[in-house]
Amino acid sequence: MFKLLTTEGRARRGIFKTVHGDVQTPVFMNVGTSAAIKGAVSSLDLKEIGCQVELSNTYHLHVRPSDDLIRDMGGLHKFMNWDRPILTDSGGFQVFSLASLRKITEEGVSFQSHVDGRRIFMGPEESMQIQSNLASTIAMAFDECIENPSPYDYVKKSCDRTYRWLERCKAEMERLNSLPETINKKQMLFGINQGGTYEDLRIEHMDKIAALDLDGYAIGGLAVGESAEEMYRIIDAVEPHMPKDKPRYLMGVGTPQNILEAVERGVDFFDCVITSRNARHANLFTDVGVLNLNNNKFARDDRPLQEGCQCPACKNYSRAYIRHLIKAKEMLGMRLCVLHNLYFYNDLMAKIRAAIETGGFARMKAEMLPRLNRRV
Amino acid sequence: MFKLLTTEGRARRGIFKTVHGDVQTPVFMNVGTSAAIKGAVSSLDLKEIGCQVELSNTYHLHVRPSDDLIRDMGGLHKFMNWDRPILTDSGGFQVFSLASLRKITEEGVSFQSHVDGRRIFMGPEESMQIQSNLASTIAMAFDECIENPSPYDYVKKSCDRTYRWLERCKAEMERLNSLPETINKKQMLFGINQGGTYEDLRIEHMDKIAALDLDGYAIGGLAVGESAEEMYRIIDAVEPHMPKDKPRYLMGVGTPQNILEAVERGVDFFDCVITSRNARHANLFTDVGVLNLNNNKFARDDRPLQEGCQCPACKNYSRAYIRHLIKAKEMLGMRLCVLHNLYFYNDLMAKIRAAIETGGFARMKAEMLPRLNRRV
Repeated sequence: MFKLLTTEGRARRGIFKTVHGDVQTPVFMNVGTSAAIKGAVSSLDLKEIGCQVELSNTYHLHVRPSDDLIRDMGGLHKFMNWDRPILTDSGGFQVFSLASLRKITEEGVSFQSHVDGRRIFMGPEESMQIQSNLASTIAMAFDECIENPSPYDYVKKSCDRTYRWLERCKAEMERLNSLPETINKKQMLFGINQGGTYEDLRIEHMDKIAALDLDGYAIGGLAVGESAEEMYRIIDAVEPHMPKDKPRYLMGVGTPQNILEAVERGVDFFDCVITSRNARHANLFTDVGVLNLNNNKFARDDRPLQEGCQCPACKNYSRAYIRHLIKAKEMLGMRLCVLHNLYFYNDLMAKIRAAIETGGFARMKAEMLPRLNRRV
Repeated sequence: MFKLLTTEGRARRGIFKTVHGDVQTPVFMNVGTSAAIKGAVSSLDLKEIGCQVELSNTYHLHVRPSDDLIRDMGGLHKFMNWDRPILTDSGGFQVFSLASLRKITEEGVSFQSHVDGRRIFMGPEESMQIQSNLASTIAMAFDECIENPSPYDYVKKSCDRTYRWLERCKAEMERLNSLPETINKKQMLFGINQGGTYEDLRIEHMDKIAALDLDGYAIGGLAVGESAEEMYRIIDAVEPHMPKDKPRYLMGVGTPQNILEAVERGVDFFDCVITSRNARHANLFTDVGVLNLNNNKFARDDRPLQEGCQCPACKNYSRAYIRHLIKAKEMLGMRLCVLHNLYFYNDLMAKIRAAIETGGFARMKAEMLPRLNRRV
């Protein structure tokens, strides 16, 4: 259940109540693809760095260790020792980006596993069954994720099929939630808006899926080839058609700049891998710009990655030390960088929430944007 | 200053007082080669898993990031944020095991760096200067570390030179400790006994270095090719010649079995890389034997690595989860395994200390040895 606390323009400050606790929005979900955050970050660490929602990948977990195993171990929460909300994606994005020898039919998609090459079939029912086995808090609908730009006719055909898949997802989720053996009988379903970069298709699709009265709505198929400006244009077009009383999730987005722009346009949920991917390349987000720790000028710099930052890396270690770890290829270097970047994002969202509460979001955004683009 | 609290046979329970705090002995030092423990383990983690002494490698730190840099950053303690004792080795072992194109003269050793190929010269004075820059609590003497077996004549010649190097180490350390710019003016020096597998050479060398009245004495050049039985024979031979009022350090040893046998023979300090190396291959030490987490039978095992273990891995995660992380090549898996194995060793030493205090060490050893050899 989503409760809107206050707004500033289109920016929303809300609470999303789940069986695993409340989520304060806007929120950035921390990505733990295979039930673990890249960079040796554990579920205990996530609590320390202020993570509210962990995101795991259905496709990866289906392939390894298998959702059957995770169900047998009591579900994803117990498996990874995390008691707060978990969102699982549908597997759709990975099927279309990672798997090979793909064949799409009305029933679903058959493809080859990127791990062991075995043939797998996944359709709406399979995706819901896997996510039910994982017992996440929020399941995502199974959709086709297309590249941008794609031909209008193909996008239209794909959108219609994704809608029919969504109806099947909803029916299957209701059936699964009613089974006595289901671990999380209150599993929620978010629908995903598609339509490429075509505003009319986006709006038509959004209106149709909104009528299904799901637990939340995502904007999918963005940040996959189009420019940031196109992305904002699509959000601007589709947002008025999204239910006001449901959370909105912009999938796979993005930079701190993208997040500020999208919050301003009424988005509540975010996730992105650049947070940890940049960290693994020693690119750190700070409130005065991006810091590349590979730069030689940090070799004897005894300041923290970001002055005043309360993350476990900044509270305990210097730029010089972490840079040395990166250069010496010590895993600890990567871990400290990932902890910092995730903390930066979680803290950014906390600042955004506080700003909306006091009507100061527009000012905060204006002040922050130019600094984010700098190089430290 | 070393204080012997109690003994059981030759086994010793003591306290070694240092400028960075007391060390309860027998102790296992946790190896952080490049000022970081392999497996993304930080100095904060070391405190949580009961580490008393961190060990860093002079050769590695000299090559990268350089001891000059670490001196400029305030020394190793400040650099890695660790306020308890640090022991640095002399670089000798790495020069003889890692570096190439080695040339030994009376002055010292010239060799090629394994990182960037540049030519480096290291002799007793250089080793002391580097360790003084690192500002460790305990510096080790620069010695030649030879393989076992080596010809008697060569070992004798090498021992004599290592003794002359030790005299130079002592003089240089005294000079460095008296300089106003030296970070740790109370840096201590441990001498290293050599002599290969020849008891007479070992004893002759030990008697000579004991007369130098150093802060502690190590037995070096063991666990480098000879059998465990030969190692115990050498310890038995040389131990009566080691000062009773100084700590004794068996370098690079070893398995829990080796440690129990060596404690029984009067050794106080240990270090070894197998603790973390085995962990990185998912081989875990437990009180009922060695557990290889790669084994398929652990795939759905919801027990901790070791029942009742209080390490961060066992308190929070199951065998099934950690095994999944290892299989998925998630760094977190390695981190949790390293944390467990280091905790196991630190906890083993705590149990050994408690046993000696109550005269129960012989019984503890007899009970533990057969279990350690089992496969879980």
